[in-house]
Amino acid sequence: MTSITTENQHYYLGIDGGGSKCRVVLTNAQFSVIGHGLGGPANPLRGMEVAQASILDATYQALAEAELPKSALANIIVGAGLAGVNIPEYHRIFSAWQHPFAALYLTSDLHAACMGAHQGKNGAVIICGTGSCGLAAVDGKVLEVGGHGFPYGDSGSGAWFGLQLLQRVLRSLDGLLPKTRMTALLQQQLGLVGAIDLASHFMHVSATEYAKLAPLVFTAAEQGDAQAQEIITEGAAHINAIAKRLMSINPPALTLIGGLAPKIFPYLAADVQALVVAAAEPPELGAVWFAKFAQQQALSSEQSSKVML
Amino acid sequence: MTSITTENQHYYLGIDGGGSKCRVVLTNAQFSVIGHGLGGPANPLRGMEVAQASILDATYQALAEAELPKSALANIIVGAGLAGVNIPEYHRIFSAWQHPFAALYLTSDLHAACMGAHQGKNGAVIICGTGSCGLAAVDGKVLEVGGHGFPYGDSGSGAWFGLQLLQRVLRSLDGLLPKTRMTALLQQQLGLVGAIDLASHFMHVSATEYAKLAPLVFTAAEQGDAQAQEIITEGAAHINAIAKRLMSINPPALTLIGGLAPKIFPYLAADVQALVVAAAEPPELGAVWFAKFAQQQALSSEQSSKVML
Repeated sequence: MTSITTENQHYYLGIDGGGSKCRVVLTNAQFSVIGHGLGGPANPLRGMEVAQASILDATYQALAEAELPKSALANIIVGAGLAGVNIPEYHRIFSAWQHPFAALYLTSDLHAACMGAHQGKNGAVIICGTGSCGLAAVDGKVLEVGGHGFPYGDSGSGAWFGLQLLQRVLRSLDGLLPKTRMTALLQQQLGLVGAIDLASHFMHVSATEYAKLAPLVFTAAEQGDAQAQEIITEGAAHINAIAKRLMSINPPALTLIGGLAPKIFPYLAADVQALVVAAAEPPELGAVWFAKFAQQQALSSEQSSKVML
Repeated sequence: MTSITTENQHYYLGIDGGGSKCRVVLTNAQFSVIGHGLGGPANPLRGMEVAQASILDATYQALAEAELPKSALANIIVGAGLAGVNIPEYHRIFSAWQHPFAALYLTSDLHAACMGAHQGKNGAVIICGTGSCGLAAVDGKVLEVGGHGFPYGDSGSGAWFGLQLLQRVLRSLDGLLPKTRMTALLQQQLGLVGAIDLASHFMHVSATEYAKLAPLVFTAAEQGDAQAQEIITEGAAHINAIAKRLMSINPPALTLIGGLAPKIFPYLAADVQALVVAAAEPPELGAVWFAKFAQQQALSSEQSSKVML
């Protein structure tokens, strides 16, 4: 790698920021981990004040572990992979932050996950968790698909599986579909029996509540339930479609992330399965890789500017 | 009909109460309409104080039209067909109301609509509006199917159609599905182009916002769009399933209600289409029919009690 020259000792901080918590890792200039931190939500969806406080809180933890003073903030180059920053409005708000770091480079949590999974090399990642989305990064080209939010996006995700289950159970209880094993499993999980009570439970809930039902689909399918198997076939087709789209730019490897990943893997197409590898490093280290590349690019364009002047 | 004997002149009030407004009609003892009223939301979802105020407001309008004093409230037998009262909690809250009327009989808005459509006779009704649900009332037996709320219930409804459209457009923009005419129609309707902007628009919206997209599916299908035609085939299958289930108790006629009804009618099965008739009377008059039957039943059980004593 190109060596980065600065007057002082410098550090890298990688942030993996989601809707409920942020995880940070601090490295020295040689990319050896010297500290960790865990904070509250760091995406701009919950407001910039919360996000900034969460990030600084987690950073101070990492500094303490590394036995560095708070004044070291000015020597930290930050890579932040944050959920929500692909929404232009949130990106704008976050970019305007008068942060205390040497530099702050922003990308999506998905991009950071991909950088971590493949240690900064070409590759792709698909998240099959509460939501679903995919990203491939090949020779500087980044392709992102899926996501967009529940219930209109995130097809094949945990929330999507839960919604399909609930829809079928309600239709089945109304006599609009045959009986399904999923009904008893749902009634048992929630401690509710009637269609009206089941429906009322989901009246104002988030995607997370639906995602909690996803494992029941797989349980019912294992017990031979035809309707559960239909849902899995359809859900796997959605994840396959994301994978095929990412494969159009030829990533050499694909990592599946999220609670549903091991369950859905056996149902994916053979050529998709053949690409799958485990993640080499977690997203917060991916954010460090991102910071490193972004800093190199910033320095080289600064040098180009100097040459041009 | 059995004549109802009371000491004073008495009246009937029929209420059709939905989530955004309530419509009332006042009749004399011979069921001739003598007044009308229109109030705010009358279902308990918005809170009982709002519901009571909406109902009284609309009732006073009807009394004024009939040139009756407010003291006539005590001589009014009310039938209320309200959205939400099939949820036990809301039914309990509403039943506890210390109302100023001679009597108040509660049922669902769907039941009142069915009574109105078939003038109190046997029949069935399917609502294809923002939501979808069906009810058949045959010889005192009442069968209710569908509904339950969006997005887990209300399959084949306007909101359901809108969601299918949005899902397909987002997948298409991501390259996960072929191009569709629906994309341009959606972009035009909302004045938004990119997937992120389109998705953001629907982040916290109600079923009503999705239902506004439903006509675009039919427009695209008329222009030969294969994906729009697939959505209509699936949506019509949901409405057909509701109809077939209702037909299991042999209603002699079926009325389709709601903004989507004329659009979906041509796609229904031939034996379903053959049952369809126009509504004879609106839901608020159905609520008067309901009040009449409920009052007869109350009087006859009172007489039985007297005989038994």
